[in-house]
Amino acid sequence: MAVAAAVPAQQLGLAMISSLAFLRSRAVASVASKSCRLKFEKEVAHSNLCGAVFGRQGRRGSIVRGPCSKARNLCAYATTQESVRGPSQAGPPSTDGGVIDTSPPRGTRDFPPEEMRLRTWLFDNFREVSRSFGFEEVDFPVLESEELYIRKAGEEITQQLYNFEDKGGRRVTLRPELTPSLARLVLQKGKSAALPLKWFAIGQCWRYERMTRGRRREHYQWNMDIIGVPGLEAEAELLSAIVAFFSRLGITSKDVGIKVSNRKVLQEVLGRSVIPQRSFAAVCVIVDKIEKIPRSEVEKELAGLGLPVEAVDTILQALTLRSLDDLEELLGSENEAVLELKQLFELARGYGFEDWLQFDASVVRGLAYYTGTVFEGFDRSGTLRAICGGGRYDRLLSTFGGVDTPACGFGFGDAVIVELLKEKNLMPDLSHEVDDIVMPLEEQLRPQAAAVAARLRACGRRVDVVMGNKKMKWAFKHAERLQAKRMVLVGSAEWAKGSVRVKDLSSREEKDLPIEELV
Amino acid sequence: MAVAAAVPAQQLGLAMISSLAFLRSRAVASVASKSCRLKFEKEVAHSNLCGAVFGRQGRRGSIVRGPCSKARNLCAYATTQESVRGPSQAGPPSTDGGVIDTSPPRGTRDFPPEEMRLRTWLFDNFREVSRSFGFEEVDFPVLESEELYIRKAGEEITQQLYNFEDKGGRRVTLRPELTPSLARLVLQKGKSAALPLKWFAIGQCWRYERMTRGRRREHYQWNMDIIGVPGLEAEAELLSAIVAFFSRLGITSKDVGIKVSNRKVLQEVLGRSVIPQRSFAAVCVIVDKIEKIPRSEVEKELAGLGLPVEAVDTILQALTLRSLDDLEELLGSENEAVLELKQLFELARGYGFEDWLQFDASVVRGLAYYTGTVFEGFDRSGTLRAICGGGRYDRLLSTFGGVDTPACGFGFGDAVIVELLKEKNLMPDLSHEVDDIVMPLEEQLRPQAAAVAARLRACGRRVDVVMGNKKMKWAFKHAERLQAKRMVLVGSAEWAKGSVRVKDLSSREEKDLPIEELV
Repeated sequence: MAVAAAVPAQQLGLAMISSLAFLRSRAVASVASKSCRLKFEKEVAHSNLCGAVFGRQGRRGSIVRGPCSKARNLCAYATTQESVRGPSQAGPPSTDGGVIDTSPPRGTRDFPPEEMRLRTWLFDNFREVSRSFGFEEVDFPVLESEELYIRKAGEEITQQLYNFEDKGGRRVTLRPELTPSLARLVLQKGKSAALPLKWFAIGQCWRYERMTRGRRREHYQWNMDIIGVPGLEAEAELLSAIVAFFSRLGITSKDVGIKVSNRKVLQEVLGRSVIPQRSFAAVCVIVDKIEKIPRSEVEKELAGLGLPVEAVDTILQALTLRSLDDLEELLGSENEAVLELKQLFELARGYGFEDWLQFDASVVRGLAYYTGTVFEGFDRSGTLRAICGGGRYDRLLSTFGGVDTPACGFGFGDAVIVELLKEKNLMPDLSHEVDDIVMPLEEQLRPQAAAVAARLRACGRRVDVVMGNKKMKWAFKHAERLQAKRMVLVGSAEWAKGSVRVKDLSSREEKDLPIEELV
Repeated sequence: MAVAAAVPAQQLGLAMISSLAFLRSRAVASVASKSCRLKFEKEVAHSNLCGAVFGRQGRRGSIVRGPCSKARNLCAYATTQESVRGPSQAGPPSTDGGVIDTSPPRGTRDFPPEEMRLRTWLFDNFREVSRSFGFEEVDFPVLESEELYIRKAGEEITQQLYNFEDKGGRRVTLRPELTPSLARLVLQKGKSAALPLKWFAIGQCWRYERMTRGRRREHYQWNMDIIGVPGLEAEAELLSAIVAFFSRLGITSKDVGIKVSNRKVLQEVLGRSVIPQRSFAAVCVIVDKIEKIPRSEVEKELAGLGLPVEAVDTILQALTLRSLDDLEELLGSENEAVLELKQLFELARGYGFEDWLQFDASVVRGLAYYTGTVFEGFDRSGTLRAICGGGRYDRLLSTFGGVDTPACGFGFGDAVIVELLKEKNLMPDLSHEVDDIVMPLEEQLRPQAAAVAARLRACGRRVDVVMGNKKMKWAFKHAERLQAKRMVLVGSAEWAKGSVRVKDLSSREEKDLPIEELV
């Protein structure tokens, strides 16, 4: 860092000018602050409204819709405006001189900085909880072979694949969920993987629906999976992680509950019927739709699988159970479902999160591969869709041609949780984090300003350098917008003395500081 | 936490047994450690080999290939094994009883834990550097409208789109790069965005090539972009960030250089020719291929744009320039390209990273939209492809129908940098991070073990709970594999006294610790 020995008189004047500018800009900054805050509050209020009107979906996917055109692009997490844009509403195609459609593709989101901060905060929480439970992060391609999802059980997820044929004639799909990829990777690792595996992933998942407006075609999902543990302690660990996540965000068991059941309940009830065992998954998928489609439709679909109409009554009766005692009465105390559920609740009691759990036989989950415990996180106020869901899938690996391997896991989406945080007034206050704004007071001092910035960055500070020929007024407004902590002005008078002018933006104190003392 | 008051005699014995187990397991762990280390070293050596043979590509994309079938799935960053799997090599399709193809789709990667740790480390470095420069993170959909990339200049990137028609008949594509999405978002934000915008993104980009084996179809790219700054200080900030990133990883200006030129050099040379101005981008794209395809082919392609064969000589002559003085001699000292380049080098000198830069007129970059400065990070040993590249693109927004807005940025891939780190022996040592292994010594103490784990997690520790009915020997092997710091044993004798047994796995010291002192 070369410092000029002689200081021309005109440069000495600069320090004074900059001090005056400080004084003037103080008033300006204060006004700017107020108007910025007002604007911000308005936007937040509006986006909350949109979250309530747009994003809200009834349990199991029924959608409440409303107009909210003003919310365009304000918030990926609050609105799903992009997804409602049909071909008729699309902007003009790209032509010379025409403006391209600036919306992302239908059903997808952009993440401008304010939305990205929220996503990063959410993902960081997913990661920190997973790591605190000793899980390792993994990922898989967002594009997978379609064969990974061919399960023939009539699941919504496999009927809404975002699939296509690639240029090599292969059937591929944007992944609808993460579990089959995980199972594929476990198979690929084979015996080199030391069980149990405790893996987590955060990945974007896709679906394609033709008909529905106002639903997104992508979302991010946090998964935690345990491979190789047959006992209920695996489920207990997963549920414990979910509860740890909620607690970390300020959500209590008064806000959220987790409904728990076991696929073996349905299996036992069906065992008394004449249905072939291989249709079990299909029965579960149909039964899961009980609150979405008319009962007559459910009966018709079950009949299609060979289930006598009279058996439907038995099933639906069993699904109304809400107490383990009643379940025990129905299935007997030695029944596997009863024993497993009792053990899981006992573990939950021991772990101290029993207040979050409730037995609910109506929880079946819509995925074909579950074999045992199934669970679903729900909002106790009853207005939101399921927040997360999971269960045990001990036979997924064998359907892929591997050997049966005990496994369980859950998926936790990025959308409903944000709606819940808004409703509970638990949204974090996330602003762009910049520590210092460095500004050269003359264009020729730019290299010196860069050296100051480099020094501060090396100290771990986040430093924005003012670019272009900006006025002091602009710089202070900019600092306010970025909520910076300090303004560091590089003027030739101070520089000649080996110093810079540092202004603390909260205390409004300012002083000259030798470069070597700048941290 | 309920602690039993009375301690049965048989439980008291447990503490002794566990101490014995400690002693026995010490020897076992030591043996296991050695064999694990050996196996690991072998794998690393092998994967390094693969990195050198497989992943290496000559500058500008020429590929050196070799057989390395043993490396399958060892390392996403070291090999591109997945991409070499053609239809003839694919596993059997999913059939009842058959094993599915456990490879990810052709040209894509899985990220098992060891690869994911490397990716996370790399992305964290991207993020930390970007944030230290005051940039904000953004993201866009991985699936974009095809129209965003219709540029008609014959770029490789637009000829290799991973595009398809969605079920609604729209032309979409997996994004080949991030810049057009960024430009779209800037346009969408319109006047609500306070310029300058300093944005960064880390996103997966895709391409589809039919012919080539051994090249991946996806990679992650780190972008930093500055929108709204016309001056060269924007380029200087970006180059400074790239240099900060390299330095952070231990890479010096002896390892890596950045070739810098300016599209206005070519524009000036072309200005003396009869080529229409609107063909400028196409000329750049062709000229960029000069080292990849025969000169006769370049001449033919340029002739196709209306450029006389004799003009090619002038162009190719200009591209051989390697000094700014020679450039000044050719174009004159008042030429815009000369002035901009001189200013950028002056800033680099002031910023202190001049030793990383070199003027090289042959750098043109293959993207149509660059208008001014262009640069390319390269490995000085000359064996790797370009590490990163970028430049100024002041007219991209106007080609999308917006107003001309000064902009510049760079893309930095996730593949070549890893090859470089391996060559320079700078790969980080990343292991699965677990602090404590908690193990209940009896199945009925599982809730107590969970409570201990919960307590430690609340203290910020990463805790793995041993699940299933495991032997002490297994647990110590497991702890070694995870490089855990402590083993916390929950036995009924200690528990009855309100304590757990804690073993420091590095010092081998063990002691009973009251629960409330456990941190």
